[in-house]
Amino acid sequence: MSKIRVGIYGYGNLSRGVESAIAQSSDLELAAVFTRRDPASVSVRTAGVPVLHASEIEKCQGQIDVLVLGGGSATDLPEQTPAMAKMFNVVDSFDTHAHIPEHFANVDAAAKASGHVALISAGWDPGLFSLNRMISDAVLPEGKHYTFWGRGVSQGHSDAIRRIPGVKDARQYTVPVPASVDSVRAGETPEFTARQMHTRECYVVAEEGADLALIEKTIKEMPNYFEPYDTTVTFITEEELKQNHAGLPHGGFVIRSGVTGFEKEHKQIIEYSLKLDSNPEFTGSVIAAYARAIARLGKEGVTGAKTVFDIAPAYLSPKSAEELRAHLL
Amino acid sequence: MSKIRVGIYGYGNLSRGVESAIAQSSDLELAAVFTRRDPASVSVRTAGVPVLHASEIEKCQGQIDVLVLGGGSATDLPEQTPAMAKMFNVVDSFDTHAHIPEHFANVDAAAKASGHVALISAGWDPGLFSLNRMISDAVLPEGKHYTFWGRGVSQGHSDAIRRIPGVKDARQYTVPVPASVDSVRAGETPEFTARQMHTRECYVVAEEGADLALIEKTIKEMPNYFEPYDTTVTFITEEELKQNHAGLPHGGFVIRSGVTGFEKEHKQIIEYSLKLDSNPEFTGSVIAAYARAIARLGKEGVTGAKTVFDIAPAYLSPKSAEELRAHLL
Repeated sequence: MSKIRVGIYGYGNLSRGVESAIAQSSDLELAAVFTRRDPASVSVRTAGVPVLHASEIEKCQGQIDVLVLGGGSATDLPEQTPAMAKMFNVVDSFDTHAHIPEHFANVDAAAKASGHVALISAGWDPGLFSLNRMISDAVLPEGKHYTFWGRGVSQGHSDAIRRIPGVKDARQYTVPVPASVDSVRAGETPEFTARQMHTRECYVVAEEGADLALIEKTIKEMPNYFEPYDTTVTFITEEELKQNHAGLPHGGFVIRSGVTGFEKEHKQIIEYSLKLDSNPEFTGSVIAAYARAIARLGKEGVTGAKTVFDIAPAYLSPKSAEELRAHLL
Repeated sequence: MSKIRVGIYGYGNLSRGVESAIAQSSDLELAAVFTRRDPASVSVRTAGVPVLHASEIEKCQGQIDVLVLGGGSATDLPEQTPAMAKMFNVVDSFDTHAHIPEHFANVDAAAKASGHVALISAGWDPGLFSLNRMISDAVLPEGKHYTFWGRGVSQGHSDAIRRIPGVKDARQYTVPVPASVDSVRAGETPEFTARQMHTRECYVVAEEGADLALIEKTIKEMPNYFEPYDTTVTFITEEELKQNHAGLPHGGFVIRSGVTGFEKEHKQIIEYSLKLDSNPEFTGSVIAAYARAIARLGKEGVTGAKTVFDIAPAYLSPKSAEELRAHLL
């Protein structure tokens, strides 16, 4: 059987994670990487894969079964996903929750008009966490769900610290509050404030002579990002940052706490948790599995925008239905 | 919108769990309960629901959107599911893993011939645990998965003890070995023997004058059921059994421990866990959600046998696609 030809558009951390996942999947092959930079400046890990300028992508129609978009949700994906869905089956990891309905509508229109199928918001949140929130909500309609993130590096919060004058580099860890996780696991269903669910740990490399007290105050008082949380700021050297904070670990928990029975007398708790050494590689692995699903659905003639809620799980696996039933059911 | 009419065939613990879940779902209604006993001897919880003899079920074709089969996997379901799939869309909880391929084929043939759709093996294992094994396997193809059950009451093991001469009643708890769970959570990927994964706790009410030492020896040496495990036997009074062991709690964990990266240098751990006060009510809640999905697929004209791997998650929820995307993605 011929392999599914996957293209990658944009080549950052996430795309490298997708590339690594493709290398672990015998039914997928990396067909090409597209970049808006000078292709000669981009070297990919997979031997023999062409790196092409983004402007050449139109010519590759018919040679790629599914295109993965590696761009960001703020400015890249709102434009790129609908544009690429006119030419290819696509998968993105759009994660700006508030704009999902609008993004879905734009991608759906483009994909339907051109006869392609597009999955938006693949990854783990949105993605596998969404799947667990949704299924748990359907199984236990009377209950509450809680999403805790971490302990892990938040790229957005790290960037926000880096923009403060006097900061050379920074890493921000989002950390769930253990007592709150424990209370939910024990079947309590409290209403939490943001502060009660997560703390924020900041490791900051300051420029020489910078006003450390001012940097700390600026971080802690930053609205939305840090003000609503208990935040700690630790100044470290550049070497310490490289040595102890080079990785991009992440993870978290989705917990549904529900009741069943005619008297609502029984507590039922569903928990889904991730502990990830590498956030981009795990996200890339999820995206690769959904790229497989989208390529197959495209082949079946399905069109329009989809989310993880719309994909029957068997499509994610290279194994046959018989094999899945015999060994994993 | 009219409600989905659910029928229940057989009325034991599991069916009562399904009934309770239907009562929690505003889009489902219990249309009828069918029993092989004298219908007058069966009183259901839901007001106004007819209890009919199983022999009357043929006449109810066209009045039930989906029929849930509450019977057991040993003798009931291998006959009942194919027979009922000739007349109705059906859902069962067939859980004899070794016979799933054969059962699937029989149900598939019956459902296709009659134009119905049938879901086999709904519940949590098989069911939600299977779904997590399968999705995790697709996302992290290089890794191992572990399924731990408990702490919870195993009906089959309790029954096996009850069949020993001199035993009046018994409850068996399956208990995961904490050190083994911890090692898997820590990212180790050991090969376990059955003994290393679970212990078995037996609470036994003996008949007056019974030979307790012989009962204990008979339990501990029982092949397959107890011999491969570290088993403890505690003799208690009938009152203690009623007071401390009346419930049917259960639960467990599915853990996938995988690696990603070109050097397989990153560990990634996915864990799905359940902590259930009532096993039959939770299983019934899962079945009710899949009954909703099957009724919808039936309405769309889908036919044949399905498993949880074949059902797009959105079908499980009464919420609209827009609502799911806006609030749970």
